[in-house]
Amino acid sequence: MKTTICAPVTGSAAGAVALVRLSGPDALGILSGLVRTERPFEPRRQTLCTLYDKEAVLDQALVTFFRAPHSFTGEDVVEFALHGSPYIQGRLLELLCQAGAVPAKRGEFSYRAFLNGKMDLVQAQGLCDLIAAGNKAAHRLALASLGGQLSQRIEAIKTGLADLLAQIEVRLDDVDEEMAPLPDNLVRDRLDRAAAHIRALADTFSVGRLIKDGLRVAIIGVPNNGKSSLLNALVGFDRAIVSPRGGTTRDTIEETLEAGGQKIILTDTAGIREHVLDPAEEEGMHRSRRAMQNADVILFLLDASREITPQEKALWDEVSRENKRIFILSNKTDKASALHPLAQGMENYTHLSVSCKTGEGLDKLKQALCSLAQAAPADGVMISNLRHYEALLRAQTELESAVLHLGDGGEILAEHIRGALGYLRGLIGEVTPDDILGIIFSKFCMGK
Amino acid sequence: MKTTICAPVTGSAAGAVALVRLSGPDALGILSGLVRTERPFEPRRQTLCTLYDKEAVLDQALVTFFRAPHSFTGEDVVEFALHGSPYIQGRLLELLCQAGAVPAKRGEFSYRAFLNGKMDLVQAQGLCDLIAAGNKAAHRLALASLGGQLSQRIEAIKTGLADLLAQIEVRLDDVDEEMAPLPDNLVRDRLDRAAAHIRALADTFSVGRLIKDGLRVAIIGVPNNGKSSLLNALVGFDRAIVSPRGGTTRDTIEETLEAGGQKIILTDTAGIREHVLDPAEEEGMHRSRRAMQNADVILFLLDASREITPQEKALWDEVSRENKRIFILSNKTDKASALHPLAQGMENYTHLSVSCKTGEGLDKLKQALCSLAQAAPADGVMISNLRHYEALLRAQTELESAVLHLGDGGEILAEHIRGALGYLRGLIGEVTPDDILGIIFSKFCMGK
Repeated sequence: MKTTICAPVTGSAAGAVALVRLSGPDALGILSGLVRTERPFEPRRQTLCTLYDKEAVLDQALVTFFRAPHSFTGEDVVEFALHGSPYIQGRLLELLCQAGAVPAKRGEFSYRAFLNGKMDLVQAQGLCDLIAAGNKAAHRLALASLGGQLSQRIEAIKTGLADLLAQIEVRLDDVDEEMAPLPDNLVRDRLDRAAAHIRALADTFSVGRLIKDGLRVAIIGVPNNGKSSLLNALVGFDRAIVSPRGGTTRDTIEETLEAGGQKIILTDTAGIREHVLDPAEEEGMHRSRRAMQNADVILFLLDASREITPQEKALWDEVSRENKRIFILSNKTDKASALHPLAQGMENYTHLSVSCKTGEGLDKLKQALCSLAQAAPADGVMISNLRHYEALLRAQTELESAVLHLGDGGEILAEHIRGALGYLRGLIGEVTPDDILGIIFSKFCMGK
Repeated sequence: MKTTICAPVTGSAAGAVALVRLSGPDALGILSGLVRTERPFEPRRQTLCTLYDKEAVLDQALVTFFRAPHSFTGEDVVEFALHGSPYIQGRLLELLCQAGAVPAKRGEFSYRAFLNGKMDLVQAQGLCDLIAAGNKAAHRLALASLGGQLSQRIEAIKTGLADLLAQIEVRLDDVDEEMAPLPDNLVRDRLDRAAAHIRALADTFSVGRLIKDGLRVAIIGVPNNGKSSLLNALVGFDRAIVSPRGGTTRDTIEETLEAGGQKIILTDTAGIREHVLDPAEEEGMHRSRRAMQNADVILFLLDASREITPQEKALWDEVSRENKRIFILSNKTDKASALHPLAQGMENYTHLSVSCKTGEGLDKLKQALCSLAQAAPADGVMISNLRHYEALLRAQTELESAVLHLGDGGEILAEHIRGALGYLRGLIGEVTPDDILGIIFSKFCMGK
């Protein structure tokens, strides 16, 4: 790693202060060209410096030097706390590059921290998730990953398998058969146990994903039964236009709310009905169906103040064919208090009565939605990243294949265990090819 | 000043790192409730700390303590460099407030710096402008203000007047007339000189304002003569929709470009013609006229490939009645090379030939626009703030009145000089009432 890289590390919106980071072997040399002080920079100490743009003053900035390896990247790092003007920040980056630095790619500071052994790949992903975390649950999840708890769990499985593999391999080399063979049931037992641990971790993905990305909830129903009113009541302000005429909503409207520390992404949709002539309405309904397919939960909204229509029955048949968790909501309970007949006797769905007008039942609905994402394991260690999930599934498959080949001689068995180990090592970044690493870190935010 | 205030000091957009500042007498006490380290915080040294949210970990942050008066505000200050997650930042601010801090109002850190004598009001305004500066010219202007050059200039005028006033006042108290009277021509000379200095400074406002806020340029013309094409050609991408049918542009379209380090705000407008029936087009033309009135420069666009129409002649009469600087642009010079007849013989306007198609003449146009904002004084000291301009004008008026009352006895003369001094003192914040200060600092960005 020869280059010295630079990038803003604070967000792009203007603020009072902006931070720019410079990392690499030339960091201190490049800094010395911008200041006119003779005093050496004491590590970690914020020093007020005048930065020069050739002969002119660029800014009065607080400059901090971090000496390798005691820095975020493990390299020499200089951080500039500038007056948060777009001009100053842009010009400083130009000056740094003229002095030999190159602009950091997305995630490149973290990539260098990873290469310098400051963190493994799972921790790096945790860091990326931590920055994106918008609520308490996602924050806890990312912190457990960044803190290394997830890495330790994977490490434990890996160590057990590596030990088993070593015992098998030593017998493969033992051409004179001097060692006692490993009993099949012992090997089977250890493979099963490792697979169970992997499966348990993989199973946390369904909840981990909801915590990290949010619970996607689609509000579905026939036209003019109060879908937009429900969205507005849940988010607490008039997000969607509501009118007494049906078919007001055309495009889907997405709004995020937080309930119980959990992110919920609500989508209000156009009402679905048959025999539509207007192409705009038809396109709206097409989008409603897409929202339904992308949702984790469907809120099927019924008007409790009137009988079910054939249109509604047909839509219900369509919705219930989706393999989704469905909440049946009887709306307008301020007008009619009984549960809607359709919702009765369908015990495999959640039934709730709500009134968008009075707000009745809305808290209960939010709690019910939250509880879907709250089946977290006690220690809080979960995976939330698709790459991690897939690696675990592949490792599990290898172990299941290994069990199937228990009687077929050690070679095939060993090969499958090696396969599983490979996926686990790839997960934490021990053997991950450079191009894969590049892809992973490129998804980081700028300046990280 | 008893409270301890807190606010984010970096912009609101998510970044890798976010800074939160805490300033006031309890800063260190509040910090100690968030960390579990016993070591005292060494001033200015960035220390990696685990921040706690009750029992849970909130973040690993770099924390810096600045001991009063060696901080931005002159108070004890703690700065937290957090992982840039919206959750962490929001939660930290909650925890700080639970521990007794209050959210800082806009500009409140700067207000405290001002109250603690860290900078005067002109410098504070310079700081505010520096953060907003988007280009080199505005940056230089703000830096001269923040650096105190503008304050020094005002201070010098103030000192001269205060000295003169003292000499007049001592003679007013001299009831026995033991002192020699001040010769009228000496007083007049000193008043004139002070007024001239004030006027020279006030005169920089016309350019300073353009540098700070940008040059407002409206593109005006009859429909379908290439106004939107000109906007697109100047900004370098297809900002406005262009069609061969006239009347494509309805609403005004604003785009900012930078040329020669100067900000130029271009406004493309709907073409203006008479006898319009469509209310949308009429509203568009209403907006065109408003853009024309708000502009510093009008680009009056003509189609060089055809004769002037009566519509065009009528519009020209309207435009030339505005008391504005006007550039007459002969467009489509790729089709007809001659200058447009209207533009000929009108020496009090700037004439330019351009072709949006070939780009011919566009650089010359940009240069001509820039030069309007480049009549800066050699030392770069200018005013760019309306409040400063008005205070200078008022001070100048007082001095002119003083000269008129030279023969009317010392009392009235002294009163006018006191008036002028009052305006100058208010300008740099020596005698500015609290409510005025509140208004000034409330225009600062959050966290400054």
